[in-house]
Amino acid sequence: MTSPSDRRAHVVGLGLIGGSTALALAAQGWRVTGDDHEESARAAALVRGVVTSDRVDPATELIVIATPAAAVVRVANGLLAQHQSPTLIVTDVAGVKGTIGRGVKDPRYIGGHPMAGSELRGLAGARADLFEGCTWVLTPTPRTDAEAYAKLHGYLREFGANVMALDFDTHGRLVALASHVPHLVAGALMNTAASAARSDAALLQLAAGGFRDMTHVAAGDPRIWPDLLFENAAAVTAGLRTVRDRLHDLEEVLHRRDRAALLEALRAAAAARRRLPGRATHPDALARLRVPVTDQPGVLARVTTTASELNVNIFDVEIAHSVEGQPGVLLLAIATEDADKLGEVLRAAGFTVSREEGP
Amino acid sequence: MTSPSDRRAHVVGLGLIGGSTALALAAQGWRVTGDDHEESARAAALVRGVVTSDRVDPATELIVIATPAAAVVRVANGLLAQHQSPTLIVTDVAGVKGTIGRGVKDPRYIGGHPMAGSELRGLAGARADLFEGCTWVLTPTPRTDAEAYAKLHGYLREFGANVMALDFDTHGRLVALASHVPHLVAGALMNTAASAARSDAALLQLAAGGFRDMTHVAAGDPRIWPDLLFENAAAVTAGLRTVRDRLHDLEEVLHRRDRAALLEALRAAAAARRRLPGRATHPDALARLRVPVTDQPGVLARVTTTASELNVNIFDVEIAHSVEGQPGVLLLAIATEDADKLGEVLRAAGFTVSREEGP
Repeated sequence: MTSPSDRRAHVVGLGLIGGSTALALAAQGWRVTGDDHEESARAAALVRGVVTSDRVDPATELIVIATPAAAVVRVANGLLAQHQSPTLIVTDVAGVKGTIGRGVKDPRYIGGHPMAGSELRGLAGARADLFEGCTWVLTPTPRTDAEAYAKLHGYLREFGANVMALDFDTHGRLVALASHVPHLVAGALMNTAASAARSDAALLQLAAGGFRDMTHVAAGDPRIWPDLLFENAAAVTAGLRTVRDRLHDLEEVLHRRDRAALLEALRAAAAARRRLPGRATHPDALARLRVPVTDQPGVLARVTTTASELNVNIFDVEIAHSVEGQPGVLLLAIATEDADKLGEVLRAAGFTVSREEGP
Repeated sequence: MTSPSDRRAHVVGLGLIGGSTALALAAQGWRVTGDDHEESARAAALVRGVVTSDRVDPATELIVIATPAAAVVRVANGLLAQHQSPTLIVTDVAGVKGTIGRGVKDPRYIGGHPMAGSELRGLAGARADLFEGCTWVLTPTPRTDAEAYAKLHGYLREFGANVMALDFDTHGRLVALASHVPHLVAGALMNTAASAARSDAALLQLAAGGFRDMTHVAAGDPRIWPDLLFENAAAVTAGLRTVRDRLHDLEEVLHRRDRAALLEALRAAAAARRRLPGRATHPDALARLRVPVTDQPGVLARVTTTASELNVNIFDVEIAHSVEGQPGVLLLAIATEDADKLGEVLRAAGFTVSREEGP
């Protein structure tokens, strides 16, 4: 393995997420190059020292594509064709994964989606610590190179991110409810209030903390959203319908003055909100699960997405090699208390799993 | 006028808002007594020095009722009957105003509603600066004593609040859209996600800043909400229906992949969100409008609510007395640039208005 200061990465698209990725990589000792199709962003990144050059170094081990979602397939396939090194890893940060994952078939590509943002936009808002404590989704497939996945997982953990593996469909369904639907609801609330404020000018003066919190995301740049929402339209539409149904239920509850039902709905929401997971902390004790990977394809993707489905955090992924140099065993570091649960489910799914307590 | 250190106020209900009101009054030099029907809250307020006694001082000039909404009419009428001083002012802080305003007919009572909150609850979360920059609604009626209104306006301005006069119905309609509907929508979003998380345990790990912001208010104590929502049910139901219609429109836009319509909805929301008024700052130059108040009833309520309808902030209200000691002229301090607009509308409504530039 190369020493950190020799590691070279390249970032395409130097906006908020791309710029923050470049800064986070540099903070970990990487030598980072980067490019942007806008001349001003490219120049600003060079001047600010976010990147050292706009050319891909031939020794680059990692390319992060942080362009708008619609450009990822073209950019990824172009770079993968141009750079044939088998140890190169290419990932992206787009908020939708299915079309991209089906359009980039190289095993060296792994889809990614950091659940981080900022009210700031562009390179000016970029920060090396933007991903600390955030969840960073990866979408491995049966084609994904296990070695590449294990390395990328480690790099993202160095940013302080909580790495989680999801298949495309699950990612779309979950991100609809955690991000896409809330964004549209924030817009609908804001537009409802703004429209009423045309006849009641005082309305917006009453917009206190709660209203401001709820409509905060609606202030962001609208241009990134159509691609995300159209690609994920089925899941988003289903989510919107569910929210509409719940609002309709609440109207009925108000109509029949059903205090018990109203309190129950509000109590359930309050309890769920208070249970929202905070930043994943490193557990006191780690166990290591060993899963042989030689005898069936797609072990990496199945094992890691199974962990996510069980809400089990994987803190470290390693590949132990067999004497022939072939990947032999997947080693997963997880909290001791999760080890039995995950081991059991994996065994039931036909994997051979052994457990060791580790440091 | 008594000097600040001689001013005495009493606060009933020492939760977050009542406790903060007591602290804000004390910070302005008031001697503050206060009571709570819960023995523990009463004792804590005395120990912490938030109030100096739990008994109403006979010289009290201001009583603030910060109990749950359902108790305000009873508490206010009891205290008004018990304390006959014509210069006493009684106000409350409940989030609904119609039933209370119709139930407390004494001209010394003025309904109030500070648009402030905190994620903290109870006296423990109380802060002297909670109302700085917040909008504090007052609901004067034709019965309201103009002198009392002018004094209360001044006291609340000392807290740093932006005081706004609304009639009951307008308050209900506006607070539905600025607070009640957003609260129910936050609950619906949270419950939708929590319910989906039962089968997709990873969902809540994806809940990043936007989702957290949007569901923040849903974490609050549910018990205060049924009274507010039932009393304001008509306006809340209308608001919920509008939000549902907008969400339905967005589903159709996604279905027909109408990029222009989607961008337009998102752009309108972003523009409106960025235009949300910030904290009202004191204008560079004030003008003073003089409105005689002797010849018709309800001048105070009509003039102040008209200003709110025009989104004109009133920074100071004074009553100039005639030689007989009767209220003679209402003096309103407003931003110079608002003076013509408000003067014109008041004149069109039949008032005699003169304008003077003032310091």
